[in-house]
Amino acid sequence: MAGPTFQALPGFRDFSPGECAVRNYLFETWRSVARRFGFVEYETPILEDTGLYLKKSGGELSSQLFRFEDQGGRDVTLRPEVTASLARLAAQHQRDFPKPLKWFEIGQCFRYEKPQKGRGREFHQFNVDILGEAGPAADAELISLAIETMLAFGFVAGDFVVRVSDRAAWITFAEAHGIPEDRIPDFLNVVDKVEREKPDALEEKLKGFGLTTSQVKGFIADPANASANFNAIRADLDARGLVEFLELDLSIVRGLAYYTGIVFEIFDAKKSMRAVAGGGRYDTLVSTISDGAVDLPATGFAMGDYVIRNLIEETTHTAMQLEVWKQRRNASCEIYVVVADETRQNDARRIVTDLRRAGVATDFSLVPAKVGKQFQRAEQSMARFALVVGSEYPQLKLKVLGSRTEETGDATHLIDWITQRLQEPDGPLLA
Amino acid sequence: MAGPTFQALPGFRDFSPGECAVRNYLFETWRSVARRFGFVEYETPILEDTGLYLKKSGGELSSQLFRFEDQGGRDVTLRPEVTASLARLAAQHQRDFPKPLKWFEIGQCFRYEKPQKGRGREFHQFNVDILGEAGPAADAELISLAIETMLAFGFVAGDFVVRVSDRAAWITFAEAHGIPEDRIPDFLNVVDKVEREKPDALEEKLKGFGLTTSQVKGFIADPANASANFNAIRADLDARGLVEFLELDLSIVRGLAYYTGIVFEIFDAKKSMRAVAGGGRYDTLVSTISDGAVDLPATGFAMGDYVIRNLIEETTHTAMQLEVWKQRRNASCEIYVVVADETRQNDARRIVTDLRRAGVATDFSLVPAKVGKQFQRAEQSMARFALVVGSEYPQLKLKVLGSRTEETGDATHLIDWITQRLQEPDGPLLA
Repeated sequence: MAGPTFQALPGFRDFSPGECAVRNYLFETWRSVARRFGFVEYETPILEDTGLYLKKSGGELSSQLFRFEDQGGRDVTLRPEVTASLARLAAQHQRDFPKPLKWFEIGQCFRYEKPQKGRGREFHQFNVDILGEAGPAADAELISLAIETMLAFGFVAGDFVVRVSDRAAWITFAEAHGIPEDRIPDFLNVVDKVEREKPDALEEKLKGFGLTTSQVKGFIADPANASANFNAIRADLDARGLVEFLELDLSIVRGLAYYTGIVFEIFDAKKSMRAVAGGGRYDTLVSTISDGAVDLPATGFAMGDYVIRNLIEETTHTAMQLEVWKQRRNASCEIYVVVADETRQNDARRIVTDLRRAGVATDFSLVPAKVGKQFQRAEQSMARFALVVGSEYPQLKLKVLGSRTEETGDATHLIDWITQRLQEPDGPLLA
Repeated sequence: MAGPTFQALPGFRDFSPGECAVRNYLFETWRSVARRFGFVEYETPILEDTGLYLKKSGGELSSQLFRFEDQGGRDVTLRPEVTASLARLAAQHQRDFPKPLKWFEIGQCFRYEKPQKGRGREFHQFNVDILGEAGPAADAELISLAIETMLAFGFVAGDFVVRVSDRAAWITFAEAHGIPEDRIPDFLNVVDKVEREKPDALEEKLKGFGLTTSQVKGFIADPANASANFNAIRADLDARGLVEFLELDLSIVRGLAYYTGIVFEIFDAKKSMRAVAGGGRYDTLVSTISDGAVDLPATGFAMGDYVIRNLIEETTHTAMQLEVWKQRRNASCEIYVVVADETRQNDARRIVTDLRRAGVATDFSLVPAKVGKQFQRAEQSMARFALVVGSEYPQLKLKVLGSRTEETGDATHLIDWITQRLQEPDGPLLA
């Protein structure tokens, strides 16, 4: 090996076929659950006017942006998240749709962070949002979807919990304790770190608000402080048979300034106690982004691909389900056509064409090769069947590669024969 | 409406649900055809080291790049195309796979061009490549896949042709006419424009190579100048029953410097005579990108989403096929659950949960609403069925929204009943 070769940029992933199959497993599961819930897919651009993110975060610009000036002198940014774009799109088009909008997107986002295990400079995110419904039923629908997504990956009760809080409860608390409205965001930032902050530092910070640690921790610990919306969500999830996954946790505030009410996180309850997904209600964002032109209450959550993938791979039963899927998907074809008589190359090409057009994933050796080599290639491709085109043509042999059984058929009834055979199990050895 | 609101950047598209459905139609068709041909999916990063593109194009940097310096001082570029990344990835990982690699990617690319109908600053591209097979059988396989992709969209003979040329034929021509090797790329650039250049200018340019227009046009017109590889491809496509789509056209050279042999374009033969897809053999690129570390012959093609979408929408039979697909996909659910008795809200939620978990796309009104309103919403969602939960619970009514017929069933056998019903046609009114 000579000379330097190019690599992917730090924090950016190449998805070679095996990795891409895992990515597709996440995407297909996300998409399938969202569709079952009656959500429709949308997608916004990867590159946006930087002003969109400045506006959303109220001027406090993240240091993590891939931000640059394009050839037309525009200040543009690779999206760090999707919600700002969604708010823009919803403000423009909401009149075209009956309410509520139930929309989802699977898209890539970009943040200039230090790459480490479980975090890159790009990641894929599953974004699910309900716009146009202000009541807790929308939050309950979203939380149910988040839970069913985890169940679809094979997680079971005990593997994860959904911790739910309500910023409204904290705002009531703050008002009752005389914290002025303009200091409430700062106060929420302190609450957000209450579990991680050193005791002395926490006490000191709360003192600035005229509070003690025990007052705040006491508030968190008392289930009576659950908001009316939380209780409505609990009743809703109880009706759905999902209440066992729900937990009140008032220590959850979530950092972003735009949340306005219910906030929640899916928490890994067994492994590393990471948040797998998070979200909440953001009733004022569409109005902010549209300069007050459109007022649309909204609630949503996002799940990134890094943490969920690690958790799936670290958990035995979910890892097995992924493995079964990968085995199926790693097969590059269902039928490998083996040419046992070189004079039948043209007939083989016609058969390959017919099978493919009938929807059967079919492969063959592009160049003449020994029969043994072709069978080796068939095994490598993880095909279920090898179809042998030999001197007996139009008689063909179909070999089940798993069971080494075989049967004979006729090229003149090829499609009927093969498609029927593909729908059947493989016989005694696989039964 | 007050104040300015944000828009997508010029040349960047928002895919609201209807647009996203069309995008998914293209993606799913591409993916399905590629899988039928035994290709596996990969994906490379959207952002790459700019050097990768400088290297590929031999230093001649495009003026169309979204190129910037990231926070770490790296010179990075939003990919204008995928092949350079594929060459990098293949050089790194080719030893892990049996040859040939049959790989495809569906990904977004970025070019700073003047936005116009049929061209934006971002576009999606279907990239299909075979690496590790130098013979014309690989080109024939690719061209077959390109043709079958068009057929899958509903195009028929007469709608399009695949025009195939071979740079090798031109290199033989150039050598026979004493054009020095280092001037061959310039000569190919003149040939590339032979159909578009003004006659005087063309004559002048060819004079610089000691040639006349009639010599060059004569070479193009004579089918005897087809290369051996072209003839092998023709025989291969003939065996597959696809030869009617093939046309020798030596005027095709394709601009990019890295093509080394067979080049081809799918041409709209009826509408605006645009190229819908194009590609060819690039046997030296992997070696160039890897500084000679890996030598892997390769051939590939790309189809962008703009031109094919326009052509589908402008052609009656392909537009109808898309329309049928959109009708099906615009349905946000299959079953809309109508709550006719408010005391049954909890039972309805349980039914919704069970149906969704059984894989049935199901929706309902998150908040109590009049029955008429709920049916209106069911119609809007384009559901096939409304399932009415009323005072007769656990007796339920299933209404076929298309035919206005109905039947009664029992909640205790919900899933069996509904899934069986979903597999049946809708009865006399739709028969």
